[in-house]
Amino acid sequence: MSLDLYDRHREKLEQACSAARTRGYWSAYKEMPSPRAYGETAQDDGIKAFQAHLGKKFEIDQPTNGEWIGAEDGPFGVELNVKYPAPDVDAMMAAAKAAIPAWRKLGPKARAGVCVEILNRLNAMSFEMAFSVMHTTGQAFMMAFQAGGAHAQDRGLEAVAYGFEEMMRTPDQAHWVKPQGKNDPLEMTKKYKVAGRGVALMVGCATFPTWNGYPGLFASLVTGNAVIVKPHPRAILPLAITVRVIREVLSEVGIDPNLVCLAVDTLEAPITKEFALHKDTKIIDFTGSSQFGNWLEDNAKQAQVYTEKAGVNAIIIDDFDDIKGIARNLSFTFSLYSGQMCTTPQNVFIPKGGIDVNGENMSFDDVAKAIASGVEKFLSVPERAVEVLGAIQNPAILDRMSDAKKMGEVVLDTTEIDHPMFKGVKCHAPVIIKVDGKDVEKYSEEVFGPIVFVIATEDTQDSIEKMRTTISENGAITLGLYSKHESVIDAVEEAAIEVGVNLSINLTGGVFVNQSAAFSDFHATGANPAANAALSDGHFVSGRFRVMQSRR
Amino acid sequence: MSLDLYDRHREKLEQACSAARTRGYWSAYKEMPSPRAYGETAQDDGIKAFQAHLGKKFEIDQPTNGEWIGAEDGPFGVELNVKYPAPDVDAMMAAAKAAIPAWRKLGPKARAGVCVEILNRLNAMSFEMAFSVMHTTGQAFMMAFQAGGAHAQDRGLEAVAYGFEEMMRTPDQAHWVKPQGKNDPLEMTKKYKVAGRGVALMVGCATFPTWNGYPGLFASLVTGNAVIVKPHPRAILPLAITVRVIREVLSEVGIDPNLVCLAVDTLEAPITKEFALHKDTKIIDFTGSSQFGNWLEDNAKQAQVYTEKAGVNAIIIDDFDDIKGIARNLSFTFSLYSGQMCTTPQNVFIPKGGIDVNGENMSFDDVAKAIASGVEKFLSVPERAVEVLGAIQNPAILDRMSDAKKMGEVVLDTTEIDHPMFKGVKCHAPVIIKVDGKDVEKYSEEVFGPIVFVIATEDTQDSIEKMRTTISENGAITLGLYSKHESVIDAVEEAAIEVGVNLSINLTGGVFVNQSAAFSDFHATGANPAANAALSDGHFVSGRFRVMQSRR
Repeated sequence: MSLDLYDRHREKLEQACSAARTRGYWSAYKEMPSPRAYGETAQDDGIKAFQAHLGKKFEIDQPTNGEWIGAEDGPFGVELNVKYPAPDVDAMMAAAKAAIPAWRKLGPKARAGVCVEILNRLNAMSFEMAFSVMHTTGQAFMMAFQAGGAHAQDRGLEAVAYGFEEMMRTPDQAHWVKPQGKNDPLEMTKKYKVAGRGVALMVGCATFPTWNGYPGLFASLVTGNAVIVKPHPRAILPLAITVRVIREVLSEVGIDPNLVCLAVDTLEAPITKEFALHKDTKIIDFTGSSQFGNWLEDNAKQAQVYTEKAGVNAIIIDDFDDIKGIARNLSFTFSLYSGQMCTTPQNVFIPKGGIDVNGENMSFDDVAKAIASGVEKFLSVPERAVEVLGAIQNPAILDRMSDAKKMGEVVLDTTEIDHPMFKGVKCHAPVIIKVDGKDVEKYSEEVFGPIVFVIATEDTQDSIEKMRTTISENGAITLGLYSKHESVIDAVEEAAIEVGVNLSINLTGGVFVNQSAAFSDFHATGANPAANAALSDGHFVSGRFRVMQSRR
Repeated sequence: MSLDLYDRHREKLEQACSAARTRGYWSAYKEMPSPRAYGETAQDDGIKAFQAHLGKKFEIDQPTNGEWIGAEDGPFGVELNVKYPAPDVDAMMAAAKAAIPAWRKLGPKARAGVCVEILNRLNAMSFEMAFSVMHTTGQAFMMAFQAGGAHAQDRGLEAVAYGFEEMMRTPDQAHWVKPQGKNDPLEMTKKYKVAGRGVALMVGCATFPTWNGYPGLFASLVTGNAVIVKPHPRAILPLAITVRVIREVLSEVGIDPNLVCLAVDTLEAPITKEFALHKDTKIIDFTGSSQFGNWLEDNAKQAQVYTEKAGVNAIIIDDFDDIKGIARNLSFTFSLYSGQMCTTPQNVFIPKGGIDVNGENMSFDDVAKAIASGVEKFLSVPERAVEVLGAIQNPAILDRMSDAKKMGEVVLDTTEIDHPMFKGVKCHAPVIIKVDGKDVEKYSEEVFGPIVFVIATEDTQDSIEKMRTTISENGAITLGLYSKHESVIDAVEEAAIEVGVNLSINLTGGVFVNQSAAFSDFHATGANPAANAALSDGHFVSGRFRVMQSRR
């Protein structure tokens, strides 16, 4: 079978493998939506391509029960009204499974080439994707372009690189010659073949359909599996476009496109469980609630299950001189996408007696106020604020904000900002609430949305302990620390390793605790309840295939 | 911390890593019990060391409930009467867990050095180990020396090599510099630390306590975990000796020896479940029955579970010219350790119309008879026969042989051979029974012991189908094929990949389907019900640790 695509993309693949090993900065795809990178007409073409989907049937020639479904709300008020073919579960599973042997026989190199080709094509469509992500998730344009486009593509490529390296650890063939003293040696020819596990199910989330979806999707694909892509009913279009591109490339290389199918459902009639418990589903990737993630881990026993679930991300503030740096950095951190990231901190632990700033005590309330003022100032220009905040993904979040305000003293109330471009749409600034460290039940679980608790602890040692308890029990993807004492930094590093969370220390510049970069930062660790896997590492890919041996 | 042991064993470790990547023949430890390899007095010293254990308390200074237990039957009639300290489960778990942080801080290189040192010391004790394995499992001396000694040590080293390589995929540190156009770049220093999952439980089996136990034990150890070693009540001594050596080396490098503890129980009062369900048990390795392996997979949800269970290994005999080669090869295969290997074939599929041998039809009965005569001839000299057969590990196997003989025409009855050295001990030759291919229920499950079914199928296509059905349902670790047609070989290779079993083709010389060599052959695939993992590959090690990141 042809290695054309592998040869064409070999350099990029090798760079990706090398970047993942050295973990310095590297990116395969341009994150700035500039005409120089994407072409003079790219933005206009992207808008038109996005608009062309609206109110239409999204045609995919795959096994269907004949119905057309889909009910995506546009958080910015743009009515999508796109209809997708509803799946026939058994027929879709059978079709996907039947496509596997030819895909397996292509071999690791050809499959990796196909995956990079798909990612490159998705990259060329980054504006169309950005508008699709924006108008399903509520992300502001720049974020939708970056997180939904280049960064998601980088994460996809990272998974391809890990999968490729993992498969290449075993040679195609070996000649085994065992000496037998004076007699002739024993000789054998051994062949090793990589085989995927079967059909994989990728369950997308409502907030980052591509960024959180691509790693599992491409990890399964490159290792020889079929993939059923099951988008969240609120964020279908970005993954529908993705599936169409994948099927197009598969067809071009002579692979049955039903290897990758789109399984759309609705909030009223969910089908994830049916796919997840199907006997031929051997891999599941899930991003979403802890409740459903735990259900999958407990019930889909026939499958390898990789989950990213809820958590209680935290910041520990100890003695620190650059309080403006803290306030500036956290303002953006809390505001970005109205706190609707799985990496946004929720719990900010501060000693109730305050902290030392340049040799002077700054009280708890003053630290809290400094952060609150930072947020207010950062969001003071509406045109700029809405481009950071984006829109609220679903109305339940607003209820949660109201409830949270009853839990303690409101240090900063939310502001509703009228979106200057999308009439009637309101953007929501974060709310900051002061709670007593002793009231652990108030902050020990995730309260998803632009909700921050500033928590008064006995001292930094108590902050560390409360972080340890909450994260051990309910998980976290990020932990931030501000301290000028190396001994405190050491203690928090040790505690972070013990509870299994990645740590960011003294971020005051242009890097934020809720951002993680492909090829350098691991997203989650798999070592606490927030996720059972990390994006991406050897563990994330090695269970997706097996090596079969034949010797003679 | 000191890298002395790493430096000392670095070359061996690198050779092991390289061998696992190229998969040609390589071995770190000498498999022949020769004075040249092990020293002039090694055999006598080994006998004495073994005898010194008999009738004694096996002292290990670890958390105990104060009782001394142990009831190992010697299959060769040698009374062991060794007593071991019974564990206090909670205290042992707590002690093991407490030892982890210091072990983690040693880092991957130092831990790998410690593991190789342990394996080297075990190698130097190979005679003592051989007698311990022989008199607990019933393996004849040569097999006990090889499989229980050098081959087990090689498998242990292989797991260390895979674990080491997996950890080394992520650097200790990275400098991340992201360009920002005309502005100063964003810069961060990132540290990556490997942390084990916690306490691992290794559940040993009665037939190959070291060979099947070392991979999980050393994979967990090198990746930073504590290990509770839970031997089968019938085969404790080999693992007790192993644990003692490990604790000795750990103490020498300043690690709390309770990192590795021995958890002995009895058939009457098993404790595996209590350890397996303990909240701090994060990894389980198990070799044994499908029933208990499946129970562990279903119930020990807090742990990564790696299992090797029962299966129905098969041989397919198609047209083939060297019928003597088949008979010679299978005679040894069926006789070795009285068929008590997880790799011994049980089901031999032969077309009922016979096969083509050098252009002439050889009937089913003649093929079966050729194999039976081969076994008879091979075992005709008692002194030699007993050194291949060894002893029956436990009496239930004899009952199973009697039952099996009622299932069809007995092509070859077993013979009882008086052991010339151990008075009163009888060795048992395999029994071969003819069954109709249609009576699938007779041969579709494992009937453990020296029991072979020759199965009359419609034709080779039917043989392939019956192999496919039985292995898909009940698993297998080995599949053998004899055919002179490349098209049949291709078809069986494809079927083997589909059902996920490793294949050996046309073995007529000195390699046997039930043998697998470390660094070259994968033992099991993890792709069928006989095992959920392979020894050893990236998947076997990657779930045993996580990488935690700290960036500033």
